[in-house]
Amino acid sequence: MSKYVYFFGGGKADGNTKMKNELGGKGANLAEMTSLGIPVPPGFTLTTGVCNYYYDNDHNYPKELKKQTDEAINNTESIMNQGFGNADNPLLLSVRSGARQSMPGMMETVLNLGLTSKTIPGLIAKTNNPRFVYDAYRRLITMYADVVMEKAEGVKTKDGHGIRHRLENILDKYKDKNDYKSDVELTADDWKHLTEKFKEEIKINLGKEFPDDHMEQLWGGIGAVFKSWNGKRAVSYRKIENIPGEWGTAVNVQAMVFGNLGDNSATGVAFTRNPATGENKFYGEWLRNAQGEDVVAGLRTPLQLNETTKAPGDASESLEIAFPKIYIDLDKIRIDLEKHYTDMQDIEFTIQDGRLWMLQTRTGKRNGQSAIKMAVDMVHEGLIDKNEALMRVLPSQLDELLHPMVDPEEEQNVSPLAKGLPAGPGGATGQIVFTADDAEEQAGQGKKVILVRDETSPEDVHGMHAAVAILTSKGGMTSHAALVARGWGKCCIVGCESLHISAANKTLEVGDKKYKEGDWLTLNGTTGKVYEGQLPLKDANPDSNQEYAELMEWADATRRLGVRTNADRPEDAVLARKFGAKGIGLCRTEHMFFDPERILAIRKMILAKNEKERRAAVMELLPYQKADFKGILDAMHDLPVTIRLLDPPLHEFITLDDDALLELADELNVASKDIQKRIDELHEFNPMLGHRGCRLGIAYPEITEMQARAILEATAELTKEGKSVHPEIMIPLIGSLAEYKNQEAIVRTIAKKVMAEQNVEFKYLVGTMIELPRACLVADEIAESAEFFSFGTNDLTQTTYGFSRDDIGGFLPVYLEENILPVDPFQSIDQGGVGQLVEMAVKKGRSTNPNIKLGICGEHGGDPDSIEFFHNVGLAYVSCSPFRVPVARLAAARANLKK
Amino acid sequence: MSKYVYFFGGGKADGNTKMKNELGGKGANLAEMTSLGIPVPPGFTLTTGVCNYYYDNDHNYPKELKKQTDEAINNTESIMNQGFGNADNPLLLSVRSGARQSMPGMMETVLNLGLTSKTIPGLIAKTNNPRFVYDAYRRLITMYADVVMEKAEGVKTKDGHGIRHRLENILDKYKDKNDYKSDVELTADDWKHLTEKFKEEIKINLGKEFPDDHMEQLWGGIGAVFKSWNGKRAVSYRKIENIPGEWGTAVNVQAMVFGNLGDNSATGVAFTRNPATGENKFYGEWLRNAQGEDVVAGLRTPLQLNETTKAPGDASESLEIAFPKIYIDLDKIRIDLEKHYTDMQDIEFTIQDGRLWMLQTRTGKRNGQSAIKMAVDMVHEGLIDKNEALMRVLPSQLDELLHPMVDPEEEQNVSPLAKGLPAGPGGATGQIVFTADDAEEQAGQGKKVILVRDETSPEDVHGMHAAVAILTSKGGMTSHAALVARGWGKCCIVGCESLHISAANKTLEVGDKKYKEGDWLTLNGTTGKVYEGQLPLKDANPDSNQEYAELMEWADATRRLGVRTNADRPEDAVLARKFGAKGIGLCRTEHMFFDPERILAIRKMILAKNEKERRAAVMELLPYQKADFKGILDAMHDLPVTIRLLDPPLHEFITLDDDALLELADELNVASKDIQKRIDELHEFNPMLGHRGCRLGIAYPEITEMQARAILEATAELTKEGKSVHPEIMIPLIGSLAEYKNQEAIVRTIAKKVMAEQNVEFKYLVGTMIELPRACLVADEIAESAEFFSFGTNDLTQTTYGFSRDDIGGFLPVYLEENILPVDPFQSIDQGGVGQLVEMAVKKGRSTNPNIKLGICGEHGGDPDSIEFFHNVGLAYVSCSPFRVPVARLAAARANLKK
Repeated sequence: MSKYVYFFGGGKADGNTKMKNELGGKGANLAEMTSLGIPVPPGFTLTTGVCNYYYDNDHNYPKELKKQTDEAINNTESIMNQGFGNADNPLLLSVRSGARQSMPGMMETVLNLGLTSKTIPGLIAKTNNPRFVYDAYRRLITMYADVVMEKAEGVKTKDGHGIRHRLENILDKYKDKNDYKSDVELTADDWKHLTEKFKEEIKINLGKEFPDDHMEQLWGGIGAVFKSWNGKRAVSYRKIENIPGEWGTAVNVQAMVFGNLGDNSATGVAFTRNPATGENKFYGEWLRNAQGEDVVAGLRTPLQLNETTKAPGDASESLEIAFPKIYIDLDKIRIDLEKHYTDMQDIEFTIQDGRLWMLQTRTGKRNGQSAIKMAVDMVHEGLIDKNEALMRVLPSQLDELLHPMVDPEEEQNVSPLAKGLPAGPGGATGQIVFTADDAEEQAGQGKKVILVRDETSPEDVHGMHAAVAILTSKGGMTSHAALVARGWGKCCIVGCESLHISAANKTLEVGDKKYKEGDWLTLNGTTGKVYEGQLPLKDANPDSNQEYAELMEWADATRRLGVRTNADRPEDAVLARKFGAKGIGLCRTEHMFFDPERILAIRKMILAKNEKERRAAVMELLPYQKADFKGILDAMHDLPVTIRLLDPPLHEFITLDDDALLELADELNVASKDIQKRIDELHEFNPMLGHRGCRLGIAYPEITEMQARAILEATAELTKEGKSVHPEIMIPLIGSLAEYKNQEAIVRTIAKKVMAEQNVEFKYLVGTMIELPRACLVADEIAESAEFFSFGTNDLTQTTYGFSRDDIGGFLPVYLEENILPVDPFQSIDQGGVGQLVEMAVKKGRSTNPNIKLGICGEHGGDPDSIEFFHNVGLAYVSCSPFRVPVARLAAARANLKK
Repeated sequence: MSKYVYFFGGGKADGNTKMKNELGGKGANLAEMTSLGIPVPPGFTLTTGVCNYYYDNDHNYPKELKKQTDEAINNTESIMNQGFGNADNPLLLSVRSGARQSMPGMMETVLNLGLTSKTIPGLIAKTNNPRFVYDAYRRLITMYADVVMEKAEGVKTKDGHGIRHRLENILDKYKDKNDYKSDVELTADDWKHLTEKFKEEIKINLGKEFPDDHMEQLWGGIGAVFKSWNGKRAVSYRKIENIPGEWGTAVNVQAMVFGNLGDNSATGVAFTRNPATGENKFYGEWLRNAQGEDVVAGLRTPLQLNETTKAPGDASESLEIAFPKIYIDLDKIRIDLEKHYTDMQDIEFTIQDGRLWMLQTRTGKRNGQSAIKMAVDMVHEGLIDKNEALMRVLPSQLDELLHPMVDPEEEQNVSPLAKGLPAGPGGATGQIVFTADDAEEQAGQGKKVILVRDETSPEDVHGMHAAVAILTSKGGMTSHAALVARGWGKCCIVGCESLHISAANKTLEVGDKKYKEGDWLTLNGTTGKVYEGQLPLKDANPDSNQEYAELMEWADATRRLGVRTNADRPEDAVLARKFGAKGIGLCRTEHMFFDPERILAIRKMILAKNEKERRAAVMELLPYQKADFKGILDAMHDLPVTIRLLDPPLHEFITLDDDALLELADELNVASKDIQKRIDELHEFNPMLGHRGCRLGIAYPEITEMQARAILEATAELTKEGKSVHPEIMIPLIGSLAEYKNQEAIVRTIAKKVMAEQNVEFKYLVGTMIELPRACLVADEIAESAEFFSFGTNDLTQTTYGFSRDDIGGFLPVYLEENILPVDPFQSIDQGGVGQLVEMAVKKGRSTNPNIKLGICGEHGGDPDSIEFFHNVGLAYVSCSPFRVPVARLAAARANLKK
């Protein structure tokens, strides 16, 4: 015979904390607490198996259920020394849902079951508190009518308003009529009168009587919970959270206890440590003569639990003073729970007539900073080991320490103006500007500016750098703005579609509001929310955080995966070193071309009529590039620096408006129509799949020659200065060995020449970016020549899925909504598809070159789930933007522990 | 001891025809002919091993070589009864290269070796023909100076002109001075005088004496041939033809025989069958008292070999009449050679003093029509079997029968105006027009027009259809114009970059020539050549060709691979059936949207503000689409028809110029700025990777519903009419099972509804196009639900390589030139990369669905090499444009035979 009902109470329980699948999280914890000897109101859990049976069998219960439930009720009665439905000493029950994973607010609860015309007089006699009883009764009626009679049965009131709304209306009118300001003023008679009214209204509107039988009430409540599992809200939530419908919900039936029976009763919620700071102090709030919902509702101000957590000057009474003996018991329970669960707990308790009851314990939510502190403290306290500490802190929680934040206290009091995609974390406040030049100019005057654009392009980079934050109306999480901002750890919100931006008029409209240049906005880049005006910010200061430093030390000792950074400038390299990066995994060279001094040379190159002219133009860039590379190699001395040769298609360097075109024609003394003709020639239908990457270096070998020379001359000069530098030259967008060899030969030839010219020996590597499906398929061939592979998973995702990251916005929302994609594949690597190619390339690459160096430098290098995948397929390192380096270090450690 | 020298002569030979790797093609055939008892001038072959030894050992020969060569010379001398270097009865030798694969004109030959001051008097005495001897001597001097003394030694004449040029100059001046018009007029003394002059000139210019020793001459010649293997010309040729340098060349040394010793001597070339018609008649030309080069040079008109091939009224003397006994011998040799080689041979012969010598036999080149005739005839003659016949005809040779051609006789007399890519085969002549509308209008007036555009778009399709040919200045072999034209078997040249087209002025400029509307051009779509004016065409008429029909029957009986067609219109389907297609592998539905009546509905749909409006607009298309599908299903009754749901991004349907936009705004009563806004929203950076394929159907399920309904209602109606139709609904651009299931569910639901509404049962399949790397990687998952896969190898190539087929023109030329790509991967499938994915998808697909139907509908379906690959990976069918169907049938048969 299947066991469908698990009893708990009186220090004994059928279940335990490991049975979350059968009992749900809440039920399993109630059982566990009971077994620990903690005073928990007795009760029982109907398993998730009942839920599944119910749905598999046309809303019928297993035949054993009734009997098992009756037994459990008997046990509950005997522990409470009350009788369910008993006229003299009635037991009241609550019914609550409880799934394997918490689904807050998604499913139903009914309290006070068992109040009937038969039991009410007895309970009044026993409590001597008719007001309490009728108040409890009207709560039961309201909840039951709403949850069981209306929602679960799918009945509609005639006018379409819900029954709860109608009942609340009656209450409001009654209060108006009697000039009551608050529920507290209502007397026992008032409540009694209202319960009669409520029942009439229910009869009229739902066509059924409110049940006056305790058993009917109980089974109605149980059925409503099971039905709510497939209610609209719950189904949508499961879809979003990827919770399978087959999990089902359990139902917890538990004896009611009341904190509102008088001044010897109370209720409270507490955390075993401070969830905001992580401090190891018992932290919570309580209210005398109140129910749990009163603490949360905010009608009365709750009081501090103990003296030590009271603010200076707070004269209110703590539970420690008011109920000293109970406080000692509670504090002991707190210690026991932490020892048992080895984690901070979020608990609820009720004191009924001087007796303490624990209603709930669960692992408490915490912010990033406190997560770190608790984890490290618990190691020092001997509660957990270092590995467990590393598993306790989510990599994403480090973000809070690494970026200034909008002050959360202030933020919760204001409504956002708009919401976009959280592309660059942290908070920022500044005056808006509409062009990159304005950004640079006004920032130069000492202003804090936010650059507002429809979207950004490489020519905006100087302005983006000058701004404190970037806000765009278009683009996704991997748009240009997002990539650049994330690289700099700059606050950025993209794809904020409700913004209407006129760069020409320098205005920003949102709904009926209009902002002009110089107006203040505040951005929360962690959530994507945009606010009007200036909100206060809290500074980031990870270095001063000792626990953070300790945790990161443990992470470094634990991880196998190396962590490098993506950095194009020496200052980024310095920053990344500070964050713990051990080298550069991707130094893009194209950004170096956009500087106004240099762009002219590249445009000359593009417009050259023959190879000789082209070569001359390209060589003008040599001194600039050499200086760039010297700077970055020096900043990352002693560590490897992977430099990618020019990647974007040439048309990116010669996107000009009419004025700029005429200006250029003038500067170069070329007919403007010839420039226009060349621009037209360079136009591509799908630039992502166009003439870029190594295809440029193959068609224009002089570009590769110049870049190789710049890197290798920089290396030679630094080597002669006694510095140890380690360049790794990366050839982009390779799809075949023939392409690779063509470019490699140029680099090796230049290297020999430079060593001879400068009379110095140095080491360097040549390798390739693996970012096309074909490169993965023929990785064994390429690895015969390449010394390293660095996976460019952004482009690999684009080509494997056939998704342009610039255009995915057209269908990504519907894909996520319909659960066709579990997550944006540019955020977290698609392990099932793109991941197969990465694994294939790793295996094939090693098959012909066992010592090949393998890394990844796409945006996924900073995503914890992706990092775990890269660890598992055996890469040597990940590379990510400087601000993601700590995140990656922790994620890498966790990946190793999980494996 | 290694054998480096292979002797042949006197009916015996060391080598044979199978030893091409060691002896080269020429040497192996000379050995083989000798062994067959055919009179071949004796000689010997130095193996390719000598060549490799030579290059591996710093230009030294193996030590055994001298001795083996001397022995072979002795054998040659004894058969010829002459002595090499003998003063009284001198043997002369020739030296010729001969690689494993023919490399025409790439390497060197030296004739008449052995003429020295010592042997000349003897030869004069013996031949009694001093003019012949000095003429032979000056030929030796010229060739030797050029090939051995200058090129092989890398010596340069002082003024940089080659020595051959200088010697010819001397001859020309001498002729001028003596008023000689032709070489024939020169006397023995003239030649003798010139040989002295030549030798002086050589001494002065190359600083060395012309060698007067026969052995020095011989080894000089041999060395020059080996050196020429690594000469610039040969190396470039090998690069293009993918011939490995390690193959090396052999050297053939052979006794000289002369057809110019007098009237009892002659020379000729012949084919064992007529290479132009395929007729089984001995066909060739000869000249009395001449050398081989005289037949080719055209100074004298060669005569027909026999009476039967003489044109009516040709009064010249045939060899059959002039040398009746020798003709009988030659005809017997012809029969023997065909029997031995079982193929048509291209032979050279010389009659020296009444004695017949065979100089060469090799498999003869032939055109498509004659290839078919010979193959089929030879089967009937019992010379070869049917399988061999199928292997004898290249699939590409069928093209000649399937399209009208520019008359080759006429074509060879004119120079092309320009050259582009041969995108649609066959020839066409017509008057040029510059817009699709003009094309349609003027074609409607009965004119033959050629549509000339920079590039074409779907909106040009009506004009493309009306035109007899299409000519574009941009785009590659898989550009829109190329794809459409090939689909229709229409003559088309694309990417003809030297054209400057002004559609506005209706002019076409090429260099300094200018053409206007109505001017005539002729296009050879098989070669990509464009001619001014009207050239005559030859009609295609495969049906009247009995041998073709027979060969195709054999092909069908031999192949395992099915052949379907890509067809969007009923008339294409009818044509393809005629060509032997067994079903439609790809019916695109988007072309059906561009009709002016329909495009308004799709534009309404695009501009709809909500789902309801969108659905209403889409449903306007239902009757049109249903009629389309009825037509095509009916035309292909009894056979499967794969219909692909809408694939291109929506912006393709709403690309408008300003006027059209205003017109549309007017028609739909929408503000033009709203239309512009929507157009801007739809803009994509990489449309190839954008919101297209199933992504459209997922975002706008009403499109899928409408199309499914149109197909299935058409099916229902035809089924009720008693027709057997087999629709296969194909969902495009699938990358995951979730996408597939989303769209499949819509189709299945509609199918159930239609069956119920129309009260009829019918069968249909649902499957998907496999055209993304990810689809191949997760093919096992997709195959759990999909009933068929059809590989879309165009898109798969784009994403696997990361090559946009619209943009590949920017670097494809340099990739082919540098041999980074062996061939355009859009022409012939990249077996090493894209092919791996196809194979993977086949294996994975079958692993979960062993009965899954597998086909391919990309452009590669008509490419013979690709078809062989698809056969080998086990696909069930290929689908190609109607005009490629016979090609595919033959290629499929050959693939099966090869395997």
